[in-house]
Amino acid sequence: MNTITYTKHNTLLGEYQIKKLEEERSFLDLIHDHGIEGFDAPCGGNGTCGKCRITIVSGSVSHVTENEKKRLSSRELSAGIRLACSCSPRSDVVIDLSHHDLESAVISAASSGGRQVSRIKPRITRKPLDMLPDGSLEDQRALLSKAIGNASASLSMKVPSALLSSLHSHIGTEADLVLKDGVPKRIAHRGEKLYSIAVDIGTTTVVCYLVDLEFGEVIDNFSGLNAQKKFGADVISRIAYATSSVEQQVRLQRAIVSQIDSGIRALAERHTISPEQIMQITIAGNTTMMHLLAGADTSGIAASPFIPVFTDFLTVPAVELGFTFTPNLEVELLPSVAAYVGADITAGIHVAGIHVDNTPSILLDIGTNGEMAFSISDHIICCSTAAGPAFEGANITFGTGGVRGAIDTVKLDDHTVSYTTIGGIDPIGICGSGIIDCVAELIRTGLVDYTGRLLTPEETDHPGIKYCDGDPVFCITALDEESADHAVYLTQKDIREVQLAKAAIAAGLQTLLSEAGVAEADVEHLYLAGGFGSYIRPESAGEIGLIPKQLVARTKAIGNSSGEGAVRFSCWEDHAHDILTVAQHCQYIELSGHREFQDFYIQEMLFPMED
Amino acid sequence: MNTITYTKHNTLLGEYQIKKLEEERSFLDLIHDHGIEGFDAPCGGNGTCGKCRITIVSGSVSHVTENEKKRLSSRELSAGIRLACSCSPRSDVVIDLSHHDLESAVISAASSGGRQVSRIKPRITRKPLDMLPDGSLEDQRALLSKAIGNASASLSMKVPSALLSSLHSHIGTEADLVLKDGVPKRIAHRGEKLYSIAVDIGTTTVVCYLVDLEFGEVIDNFSGLNAQKKFGADVISRIAYATSSVEQQVRLQRAIVSQIDSGIRALAERHTISPEQIMQITIAGNTTMMHLLAGADTSGIAASPFIPVFTDFLTVPAVELGFTFTPNLEVELLPSVAAYVGADITAGIHVAGIHVDNTPSILLDIGTNGEMAFSISDHIICCSTAAGPAFEGANITFGTGGVRGAIDTVKLDDHTVSYTTIGGIDPIGICGSGIIDCVAELIRTGLVDYTGRLLTPEETDHPGIKYCDGDPVFCITALDEESADHAVYLTQKDIREVQLAKAAIAAGLQTLLSEAGVAEADVEHLYLAGGFGSYIRPESAGEIGLIPKQLVARTKAIGNSSGEGAVRFSCWEDHAHDILTVAQHCQYIELSGHREFQDFYIQEMLFPMED
Repeated sequence: MNTITYTKHNTLLGEYQIKKLEEERSFLDLIHDHGIEGFDAPCGGNGTCGKCRITIVSGSVSHVTENEKKRLSSRELSAGIRLACSCSPRSDVVIDLSHHDLESAVISAASSGGRQVSRIKPRITRKPLDMLPDGSLEDQRALLSKAIGNASASLSMKVPSALLSSLHSHIGTEADLVLKDGVPKRIAHRGEKLYSIAVDIGTTTVVCYLVDLEFGEVIDNFSGLNAQKKFGADVISRIAYATSSVEQQVRLQRAIVSQIDSGIRALAERHTISPEQIMQITIAGNTTMMHLLAGADTSGIAASPFIPVFTDFLTVPAVELGFTFTPNLEVELLPSVAAYVGADITAGIHVAGIHVDNTPSILLDIGTNGEMAFSISDHIICCSTAAGPAFEGANITFGTGGVRGAIDTVKLDDHTVSYTTIGGIDPIGICGSGIIDCVAELIRTGLVDYTGRLLTPEETDHPGIKYCDGDPVFCITALDEESADHAVYLTQKDIREVQLAKAAIAAGLQTLLSEAGVAEADVEHLYLAGGFGSYIRPESAGEIGLIPKQLVARTKAIGNSSGEGAVRFSCWEDHAHDILTVAQHCQYIELSGHREFQDFYIQEMLFPMED
Repeated sequence: MNTITYTKHNTLLGEYQIKKLEEERSFLDLIHDHGIEGFDAPCGGNGTCGKCRITIVSGSVSHVTENEKKRLSSRELSAGIRLACSCSPRSDVVIDLSHHDLESAVISAASSGGRQVSRIKPRITRKPLDMLPDGSLEDQRALLSKAIGNASASLSMKVPSALLSSLHSHIGTEADLVLKDGVPKRIAHRGEKLYSIAVDIGTTTVVCYLVDLEFGEVIDNFSGLNAQKKFGADVISRIAYATSSVEQQVRLQRAIVSQIDSGIRALAERHTISPEQIMQITIAGNTTMMHLLAGADTSGIAASPFIPVFTDFLTVPAVELGFTFTPNLEVELLPSVAAYVGADITAGIHVAGIHVDNTPSILLDIGTNGEMAFSISDHIICCSTAAGPAFEGANITFGTGGVRGAIDTVKLDDHTVSYTTIGGIDPIGICGSGIIDCVAELIRTGLVDYTGRLLTPEETDHPGIKYCDGDPVFCITALDEESADHAVYLTQKDIREVQLAKAAIAAGLQTLLSEAGVAEADVEHLYLAGGFGSYIRPESAGEIGLIPKQLVARTKAIGNSSGEGAVRFSCWEDHAHDILTVAQHCQYIELSGHREFQDFYIQEMLFPMED
């Protein structure tokens, strides 16, 4: 009796080979019999939904049914697309399920706000060298042609010499030809796992993700403060450092490259991975971080009219950048939009999925700059506002980053203050989310009025309000002490810093809404990108007017979408192309000198009045 | 008064910048005023031919006229295509003339049998860095984006790190960004010339061409006998050598790489060219030569079913192959069709232009294998026959290559023999063209009958026919001597070798004609490729039945079309894509075991009878 042999040609939902059967069974039955995950037929195989599309790659199958003619276009039919429920094999057949999955991926991305990653066409594919058809006088195709399949001829088919010299000896063995974007790269043993490194270079923090390419899963990461930090805390000070001499620019480049290089080495050692098993390094970050990594001049970014050296996607040989552990790899730099809308934002737009939402949605990344994107029908508008570093704790008397001991939540009532710290230890300062919480509570309780003025001890009996060096302050800690000397407190100047920062971001949002002609009430989702976005409480952000109050309930933090975008870019062809497309469809709105923005900025300087 | 400034943006017919004018003048007038070559308006600017298409790259121009609406599709209009005769600038404008030239190039290639090379879109382009529009708040495009133009986003945008770090400092200077296939490669000074190296690796001879990329012209070459020759004279003996051990395979690879490397070095020294000025190395040759260069296993080529490792176009890093003078370049390997229809033939098909001829045409390359291609409507069929080395002088008693002293033409009358030698010196042997001439004359004069039998001295009084070791021979030299001891002669066995060789090639041609269902009389052109093809006299080839007699007058030698194809591939995008397309559209017909071929082979063993 003939048995059915399913052979996974490709990783995940790629190509499957089906041996000729003696009994007639539909492809849908065969797919279900063999427990292939991720392939759905919503109507249960009744032929009514038209969703169970497969592509016949080779082999002979049953005739097109009337039902298929109704549900598939003639273009689809001529491309070999069939309904799995209505079609069955007539010979050994290879089918491709990736098309089906691509569609379902887009649907799930749209309906879930982009937080669910479906498995679609991988960038790294493996072709088993023991499964190639034998050569014959009827099939004289070259070994490489058979292994690659019908790639279209292009001028960018760069193949390593070692592969050409060793391919022949691996044919018929338990080895796979590994292709990246359809171009042969190396030969791997059947059991050898392959990885990519995805990196998010934040101005403050750098995270390297080790990604298992078979499943597109992050299996470990290595993170730390950006090694460039000692040369400047923020983007502008690093640009100042880099542009003062070539040596200093090179020093910044070496710092970040060697940090990532060490990260890769550490991850590889931890998981016993050889450099050859790593297929690429994919990097996202803001435009300045990308420039400093690439060794590009950043002076154009710092000053009007803010012209970067590059924004398009490009790859650079790792060895040229100074990578030593994996010198032969390509370093992929995700596309940016402008000097202050970087690859972290294009990655974020993709991960949030606002460009495939059918409703107006916003992505907001709060840092020293508030970077934001707004999707409307077929394009995306985006801008960046200079919020200043108040939300990162800089320029705030007791401000600090999100470190152990930082006050991260604050609650007030008439006579007490309660707070939490990161790590639950004694407070050493206050970080961004604590600052927003505290100011929100001060407004809610009337201790700060809508102009931002902090009440004096004469005007209130709240024990947090004290004098310090003659000016009123609000103490979060040490309320029972007479003086503010041992307390963590906010000053009037601190509150002014918060006012300026929130005004910039809120005015940016209003400008985008106005440019798009969309009312606040019509915005469906507001996604907060970045680490900071995960920590702030939307209610507090609404209270201080950082985000519109009506959108508080529709606000959702999506975490490190820059890193997540880099991970997806490194694994999935469809995601990579989506990010390239996002970058091309983003229209940047320059706010400096933008009349409407200035009007909004002045309006938003005030805190919201009670409803 | 404003003046018109034309600035060549690109080499040749690429982009031109036009400064705003005070008087209204059509683009056609401006183009003619400034003597731009290669741009034709067949109707003389009357607006009736619709041929003077240009593309408006940027700037404002006059409105679309009714005439343009009639002659251009809406798709063309929306792509910015206009008629130069009916459109004039309204501001500073950049126009692109390459589109126009592309069309005219295709037309001229078709009408001239492909022997005329027009200047079309170059693969290497230069963007002047002193002509980029200044950045402004309205135009914040990155420097690289402005320099590249609107390239579509792709995953293969590999940029050298050195370019990213130096681009900024060259903006506004008299330097050009150099792009290869649209990907930025380096920065060149305005006056710095750029070159490519095109190589034809023949089994016998290797030629390296130095190509000036501005004009697509070969300015020098370096040639020599293939350095692998000492390891085997022909393809089969080299494969035998290569496959007996890895060391021997490497030895063959080193021999050819170091030969080409030295050739490049010699050409560079001769013309004072630095390695950076050379943009690529482009190589054509038969499939075995390509494999030996790439270090790929050739055992599959030697034995049935004749499976090569690769046939598709690919590039390999020069350093990996062992190139030392230009280690950073890509070595481009032109596409082949099969084990015995190599890149020399795909290049030859392109150069002969048989695939764009509207009439059935044949390309024939005679060597140890007779390789041939026949174009019919939308595809090309090709095959290879094992002719053996008789036409290269091997296995012929006095046979020799085309060297000084080789008899290269022979003429008989009833009592004399006249001949010429290469270099006009005393004869040392007879080369392929002399052999064909001599056999043709023997047939014409009846000294050899149609079965190939040489008359004996008893049967003729021609002084060339003598005995030698008891067998009749035909002496070409020393006719006045009694014995053949000091003569250059052909033996009966030599004539049998010629019979076998010509039968293989003639049968191959007949098989292609039969497969295509085309009669000999309907073949319009027979192009002879390769050095040998240039030397043989078509009349003699027709006399011995090597080519059909009716095609003698339609036979044309096209020289080293393999090298010429490599030169074109290295210079022109359109030619490169054409060669890729040719390779994809070639259908290979395997003659071993081909029934009809065997019948033809037996028929063609006989020489043609007198008409």
